[in-house]
Amino acid sequence: MMSGDNLSLWNDTPTKSAIVGYVHAVTDRNNTNFVPEVQRVATFDNDGTLWLEKPLYVQLHYLIRQIGLVAASNSEVRTKQPFKAVYENDQAWFKEAAAGVAKGDLTKAMSILAGAAEAFEGMTIDEFNSNAYDFLTNTKDARFKVPYKQLTYKPMVELIHYLHNNGFAVYITSGGGRDFMRSVSEEIYSIPRQYVIGSDIEYGYKIDGQGKAQVVRTTKVEQPIDNESGKPIHIGRTISRRPIFAAGNSDGDIEMLQYAKSHSGLSLGLLIQHDDAEREYAYQDGAEKALHEALGSDWLVVSMKNDWKQIF
Amino acid sequence: MMSGDNLSLWNDTPTKSAIVGYVHAVTDRNNTNFVPEVQRVATFDNDGTLWLEKPLYVQLHYLIRQIGLVAASNSEVRTKQPFKAVYENDQAWFKEAAAGVAKGDLTKAMSILAGAAEAFEGMTIDEFNSNAYDFLTNTKDARFKVPYKQLTYKPMVELIHYLHNNGFAVYITSGGGRDFMRSVSEEIYSIPRQYVIGSDIEYGYKIDGQGKAQVVRTTKVEQPIDNESGKPIHIGRTISRRPIFAAGNSDGDIEMLQYAKSHSGLSLGLLIQHDDAEREYAYQDGAEKALHEALGSDWLVVSMKNDWKQIF
Repeated sequence: MMSGDNLSLWNDTPTKSAIVGYVHAVTDRNNTNFVPEVQRVATFDNDGTLWLEKPLYVQLHYLIRQIGLVAASNSEVRTKQPFKAVYENDQAWFKEAAAGVAKGDLTKAMSILAGAAEAFEGMTIDEFNSNAYDFLTNTKDARFKVPYKQLTYKPMVELIHYLHNNGFAVYITSGGGRDFMRSVSEEIYSIPRQYVIGSDIEYGYKIDGQGKAQVVRTTKVEQPIDNESGKPIHIGRTISRRPIFAAGNSDGDIEMLQYAKSHSGLSLGLLIQHDDAEREYAYQDGAEKALHEALGSDWLVVSMKNDWKQIF
Repeated sequence: MMSGDNLSLWNDTPTKSAIVGYVHAVTDRNNTNFVPEVQRVATFDNDGTLWLEKPLYVQLHYLIRQIGLVAASNSEVRTKQPFKAVYENDQAWFKEAAAGVAKGDLTKAMSILAGAAEAFEGMTIDEFNSNAYDFLTNTKDARFKVPYKQLTYKPMVELIHYLHNNGFAVYITSGGGRDFMRSVSEEIYSIPRQYVIGSDIEYGYKIDGQGKAQVVRTTKVEQPIDNESGKPIHIGRTISRRPIFAAGNSDGDIEMLQYAKSHSGLSLGLLIQHDDAEREYAYQDGAEKALHEALGSDWLVVSMKNDWKQIF
């Protein structure tokens, strides 16, 4: 579909020139900004940077589905939230949850996360991987009518390939679930599972009924989550090198962009701006600080409307 | 020095045949045990498996050195342990610490770890990396008279190259410090930093005095540590695939070996036995359970004395 040798899905704007110019500079041995291959690390946020995040985070749909599946097969859990609300499709409860989030009261929202953790508890890595893969392959987005895993931003996928072809190690650093992304990262981005960093629950170890050793999901969320200052912390722990290229779209990506842009050599920070209501969505909520920060620094703001030939 | 195309530093024993036979089986498309490249994951313990761990863990020497450096430059910390004992070279205190460990009283041993964490607090990833690299490059082992980083087991280094050449992703899963190993892993094992898993302290994020974003060491140890059941847990979190090949030498590696050997297809588990007092050390302490476990399972026990042509 695309060679990745150039950025054919990007319009010929200053944005594209800046990206191509940067990659040429750090990969040209005769350039003073040349960076050896082992130090070419790029990190990408996922939701809203590599695939769509509206009207709901894709993963939130997944969590609610799993809560519903558990509630359908287990009448006991239906006596408590969020299983009851999901089972009864209690729209009033969900509206209250959303209203709470807007007012800073996360009680109901956190109960959804806790319910989801309970719904996945005890699953092995392989079981969870198959489950998430099945969801992303077979569940369609209401507006675009295609499975979620097809709703990646194709110019960004092309950019990942372009960086791969230029000797970069490309990582995903998602504020969302690491293992959820890992189920499809190889297929949709050509990014191996171990190059996907993210938030997730902690694992436990057990010997199962067949005497086999298993690593299984617990209900405890690993700290820190991979968002805001947690992003550079996760990057440090996993990669052990400062990225020289980073891309995000929201306030949760500010620290990652600061971290990449504090590199002593030439670095590039991209901020994806959702300004295309026709082909995707136009919104700035959750990105107000990042867009403001971009003005005062030299982050490159990517306009989905003007810089991309196509979205999906 | 070595091609890695074969295992030239291994004697022609049944052990070598078993390793070569295994690798042939999983890499031969026509073999029923063929494993696609993406699933060829190998995990190696480090201390006592890839390099020497006697008379002291190499890293313990490093921690004590750093405690001494801080004590030498800061008279205030000398009023407390372990800084006082290291600064005064108080052998009685260290003997008590060792005696405590033998009796199950870890008070003094834990104070050494806490002191070391304090001595490294605030260092950035790059600073720590340079510091550890310098130590491993310039500090000589008392018996073998060469820098620590040269005291890798060369047949095991050859085995890593052999697995690389056969399409394996090779990871280190050290119970010891992850970032300590990362400082030399590329040079001594050809294993990229991000393929080194281990125990370590948690990181923090800050903007330094020059306005640069930094990821720095805290004093809090990340849980779980990468030992015993923590090994498969770290492997699951980092790699997200079950290893089909694992190598260890001590009781802390049992769960990792169980995890690899619970693979539904053909798998190989190696247990390195330290039985060569002349060329290295002969000991079973800390490996009693693992050696016992190996008898009842089909782990391959490697005799350093009989299976290896050379050690270092």
